[in-house]
Amino acid sequence: MNEHVYKLVELTGSSKNSIEEAVQNAVSHASQTIRNMRWFQVIETRGYIEDGKVAYWQVTIKVGFTVD
Amino acid sequence: MNEHVYKLVELTGSSKNSIEEAVQNAVSHASQTIRNMRWFQVIETRGYIEDGKVAYWQVTIKVGFTVD
Amino acid sequence: MNEHVYKLVELTGSSKNSIEEAVQNAVSHASQTIRNMRWFQVIETRGYIEDGKVAYWQVTIKVGFTVD
Amino acid sequence: MNEHVYKLVELTGSSKNSIEEAVQNAVSHASQTIRNMRWFQVIETRGYIEDGKVAYWQVTIKVGFTVD
Amino acid sequence: MNEHVYKLVELTGSSKNSIEEAVQNAVSHASQTIRNMRWFQVIETRGYIEDGKVAYWQVTIKVGFTVD
Amino acid sequence: MNEHVYKLVELTGSSKNSIEEAVQNAVSHASQTIRNMRWFQVIETRGYIEDGKVAYWQVTIKVGFTVD
Amino acid sequence: MNEHVYKLVELTGSSKNSIEEAVQNAVSHASQTIRNMRWFQVIETRGYIEDGKVAYWQVTIKVGFTVD
Amino acid sequence: MNEHVYKLVELTGSSKNSIEEAVQNAVSHASQTIRNMRWFQVIETRGYIEDGKVAYWQVTIKVGFTVD
Amino acid sequence: MNEHVYKLVELTGSSKNSIEEAVQNAVSHASQTIRNMRWFQVIETRGYIEDGKVAYWQVTIKVGFTVD
Amino acid sequence: MNEHVYKLVELTGSSKNSIEEAVQNAVSHASQTIRNMRWFQVIETRGYIEDGKVAYWQVTIKVGFTVD
Amino acid sequence: MNEHVYKLVELTGSSKNSIEEAVQNAVSHASQTIRNMRWFQVIETRGYIEDGKVAYWQVTIKVGFTVD
Amino acid sequence: MNEHVYKLVELTGSSKNSIEEAVQNAVSHASQTIRNMRWFQVIETRGYIEDGKVAYWQVTIKVGFTVD
Repeated sequence: MNEHVYKLVELTGSSKNSIEEAVQNAVSHASQTIRNMRWFQVIETRGYIEDGKVAYWQVTIKVGFTVD
Repeated sequence: MNEHVYKLVELTGSSKNSIEEAVQNAVSHASQTIRNMRWFQVIETRGYIEDGKVAYWQVTIKVGFTVD
Repeated sequence: MNEHVYKLVELTGSSKNSIEEAVQNAVSHASQTIRNMRWFQVIETRGYIEDGKVAYWQVTIKVGFTVD
Repeated sequence: MNEHVYKLVELTGSSKNSIEEAVQNAVSHASQTIRNMRWFQVIETRGYIEDGKVAYWQVTIKVGFTVD
Repeated sequence: MNEHVYKLVELTGSSKNSIEEAVQNAVSHASQTIRNMRWFQVIETRGYIEDGKVAYWQVTIKVGFTVD
Repeated sequence: MNEHVYKLVELTGSSKNSIEEAVQNAVSHASQTIRNMRWFQVIETRGYIEDGKVAYWQVTIKVGFTVD
Repeated sequence: MNEHVYKLVELTGSSKNSIEEAVQNAVSHASQTIRNMRWFQVIETRGYIEDGKVAYWQVTIKVGFTVD
Repeated sequence: MNEHVYKLVELTGSSKNSIEEAVQNAVSHASQTIRNMRWFQVIETRGYIEDGKVAYWQVTIKVGFTVD
Repeated sequence: MNEHVYKLVELTGSSKNSIEEAVQNAVSHASQTIRNMRWFQVIETRGYIEDGKVAYWQVTIKVGFTVD
Repeated sequence: MNEHVYKLVELTGSSKNSIEEAVQNAVSHASQTIRNMRWFQVIETRGYIEDGKVAYWQVTIKVGFTVD
Repeated sequence: MNEHVYKLVELTGSSKNSIEEAVQNAVSHASQTIRNMRWFQVIETRGYIEDGKVAYWQVTIKVGFTVD
Repeated sequence: MNEHVYKLVELTGSSKNSIEEAVQNAVSHASQTIRNMRWFQVIETRGYIEDGKVAYWQVTIKVGFTVD
């Protein structure tokens, strides 16, 4: 840890299975264009319901990455 | 999507196993009396502890459904 | 339930696998020194990322226990 | 004003035109089944975008009505 | 405590005398139509003033009750 | 109710006895200089402790009054 | 912009027609006694309902003005 | 709706006329460089005052768009 | 007042009678082990309902005390 | 400390140099017209940027003073 | 001030010395790629501790800049 | 970083000179009894005023330390 500058971006990942997988999907997708991602914070957990079942988990995260 | 009106109700579901199952239990129970549930938002995640273990997950959600 | 007094402490548990396991790790560790833990509330869910994958889940909880 | 009891329900109204119309649509719809609505508070203002234009305003309100 | 589902409703009670009585008035009124109320949380405390005196306390609570 | 304009001021009242009396003390004092006070909202409840007892309740309220 | 000091006051304006007009009514009224108002922030949007229609919009704003 | 990933950006639009137009101005401008914008949420409503009149509405929104 | 350091602990007191007594019960119990308690802040007011009556008030406070 | 009533006002101070100086500037200016100021709380810290440098710190505080 | 559109980005700057320097470091670094930065708001102040001393201040800011 | 458990405690430090020094004073004092402190988060910044000057900065922080 030294005098780095970090940028934070907000992403929403979705998954049919779990909150963790929704977060991982967002992180995986972001890793294609953002290098040096370091941490995330869960901002909001929502979901869609179909036929009385949770059809999709939608988790919004804030991701921090080094920009220098 | 058009000029629908939605109502939101707040429910707490519980589960011995996971956050996701607690949410699904609340949604399943509500589907017996509420039709057309469309989405939910997690409001609070709590739980009970027995003998140094998480005994129950209790997740409060806000569920939106079409009323027209 | 009667006129008990409870104390609340804040803990952060971590896990490579899931949010639930991070909470359970914090509760298990606290149970070595705190008796009579009764409930918890999730305060914040964060995590660390390595190589484009969620490496650790870090969940902060507030735990209530009887002090009388 | 005397020792009334009020109930509060949460509704989301939508409109193609304005925030005010989205609120009015929710109130109008609710007035078909709820009598004695007295006040509301705006909880959240969201919307959907199509072709670079705001297609729908979606406003969530909490409505208070006398239950006695 | 087992895998119950709870519903939460928001009520505003009022009283000329105290915050506690305003809450009790809301709970008493709700008990006429809701069985199995279990807990409440105070959301907001407001009041009306007449002639430089607090004329009414108005306390909004969220009440949880078993629905199964 | 018509197209009035209200001003809101924030006051902290204190009392040795109760939350209600602390609010009433703030309202009484304000009524010496402010006419037409209409409502208040409790913002924060604090207090001072002396010798293991609550010595003073300190309640901060926002008071609304007509300015036209 | 230099080393000014600003004071902020909280006002509630009302209007039969719109949120914007309720804000403008509060600003207009305040301009009779406050000079150098510079900016505002919307704090809360509420309203009264009569006969199933929004009768009044009530918008609370915080207004900043130069005091030097 | 399937396992999309969304990105959220925060924008402030301004307008001399209305809250809705300030939001639309932000959305229109963003549509020049961002494709597939899907929804927005109003974060904050502020404004500038000149000569006792609302000169500009400034509305900050969070916009979500598909990144895959 | 000088360059003291304070520690804050969170406690939940309960009472069959009132919010004030629930706070006092928490303070009294804490005074058995904590010296030099100086102030508190009410964090949350909840309660349990039995047979349509408030059976217990549960008030969570943050208590500050000198540690030097 | 006895049964005083306090009033709270919100001020924004600015400084080219530091957060502390911005607060002190607001307090100094207010001391010209308000006697008996006792405490403050920082509400918001903002600033203006010119040529890639922080040009002004703008700190909003809530100041409490005795009114009796 | 006219009908501009602003974009807001979130950055975390760090410094061994002060909160102000951490903000300035974030602003300086951003100025290499973002033109027309106008204002910032402090979102969160954190830090790292080594050997009982604050080793790094980490301040997260939201920066607004003109995009038209 | 591995599967550690952290405990968080809340402390208020004070200083006549600056926010940073108030934080450092709280950290220094805590280091006498708590080992392995790792990070802190600023929760609240307050202060006392004497003779129109900031007499004391009081900064409340949450400190995290390893407990295993």
